[in-house]
Amino acid sequence: MKYVRCKYKNKEYYGILENGVIKVLNRSYFCSSCTETGRRIPLKDVQLLAPTLFSKALCIGLNYKDHAEEFNLPVPKDPVVFMKASTTVADPDGNIIYPRFMSHHLDYEGELAVVIKKNCHKISEKEAKDYILGYTIANDVTARDLQSPTGQWTVAKGFDTFCPIGPYINTWLDPSKLDLETKVNGVVKQHSNTKNLIFPVPYLVSYLSHVMTLYTGDIILTGTPSGISRLKKGDVVEISIEGLGTLRNTVI
Amino acid sequence: MKYVRCKYKNKEYYGILENGVIKVLNRSYFCSSCTETGRRIPLKDVQLLAPTLFSKALCIGLNYKDHAEEFNLPVPKDPVVFMKASTTVADPDGNIIYPRFMSHHLDYEGELAVVIKKNCHKISEKEAKDYILGYTIANDVTARDLQSPTGQWTVAKGFDTFCPIGPYINTWLDPSKLDLETKVNGVVKQHSNTKNLIFPVPYLVSYLSHVMTLYTGDIILTGTPSGISRLKKGDVVEISIEGLGTLRNTVI
Repeated sequence: MKYVRCKYKNKEYYGILENGVIKVLNRSYFCSSCTETGRRIPLKDVQLLAPTLFSKALCIGLNYKDHAEEFNLPVPKDPVVFMKASTTVADPDGNIIYPRFMSHHLDYEGELAVVIKKNCHKISEKEAKDYILGYTIANDVTARDLQSPTGQWTVAKGFDTFCPIGPYINTWLDPSKLDLETKVNGVVKQHSNTKNLIFPVPYLVSYLSHVMTLYTGDIILTGTPSGISRLKKGDVVEISIEGLGTLRNTVI
Repeated sequence: MKYVRCKYKNKEYYGILENGVIKVLNRSYFCSSCTETGRRIPLKDVQLLAPTLFSKALCIGLNYKDHAEEFNLPVPKDPVVFMKASTTVADPDGNIIYPRFMSHHLDYEGELAVVIKKNCHKISEKEAKDYILGYTIANDVTARDLQSPTGQWTVAKGFDTFCPIGPYINTWLDPSKLDLETKVNGVVKQHSNTKNLIFPVPYLVSYLSHVMTLYTGDIILTGTPSGISRLKKGDVVEISIEGLGTLRNTVI
């Protein structure tokens, strides 16, 4: 099932995407009691919105072996975890705002994102699947020149619009072997497969839930493969993952 | 004015604390239209709650010269910024839960916290005061043994209950020269003054607002002075700041 959040005639809706049509739900798909209203809206008439308004995006650094090698960093023994605030969210087709007043080196990072279905704390790897609503695409936009000076990545990863997500949440998907490709202005820059993840999805959900309570709608960005490069104003970044469509954003 | 959030007979209230009595407000003090209901509840009859349920706690590392020296680290040129999720919040008099399954070295860090009054983005140092509701005390609890292995501090600082705040928000306070003292089981461990902050409050609010939108109720932890040491189960940590009372928490 493909869940979308969208805007149509200035109102927001949650719905199920099927064959180019959105079947409108009576409430958010995060409510277990949501049902179809019977109303249909063509996909072409809506503006897609970020499919979850997360309270936190927990992100894993260096989770593809090739990306760690790209930066000459050792493969980590424990997940490298950082966090993007709720204010980083951007819609599919939304803009990534270049913070020129502070940075002159912006990178894209194409990633598979896990969407949490319901609050959880200290769950096992085996239980993880019961707490995952589905998967979507995320771009972990990074001001690379702000990453090293202080050592902490909160600023470099934390500007408004630095976490575009979407276009939809797919609830029927095996996250363990999905092709991922990132293009900038139509040129392929990243190409990998989630089978190359050092820490796989169930491990990450369990590990993070042992640190902090994960809330309904929170997301986990699973890391990016090699092929990182710079973005400039006007660039269009497209991240495609098997079964998840394409997340397309423009740098302004 | 001293703002408190509290629980009384299983209901939550926002109020103004005056001479041991809470003057109940009709809504949160974050609403500019809040007014007194006329109802009074004695402070001794309530359970104080964290005075803000923040969406994010932005924290500054190494912002007291003596604390940087304590760790043999250079005084930073830019603020070292990290973030604690909303799930880290703990009430005044609440418990700090020792995550023994992952850490064996817990530290307290007594800090002055700034409470944001209304959403702001890219404000100047001069404008900062208009976006500050007031100040409170925070304990930036840290699993020190989890801080270095990955380099990022999100896990080490991010366990549930790792950000006790309170007991109240003082709206009338000059944050530039406040005495701060931390005691563990009655023994003084930290003693400094906010005049020793490397990056002062208006600078921090302005700087952070240039990175990301600050929301109503968000907090900024301004850093901790020297005198860090270990906590064990059963320890009582008391952080006192001039004009802000004492934040008291027990490690369980």
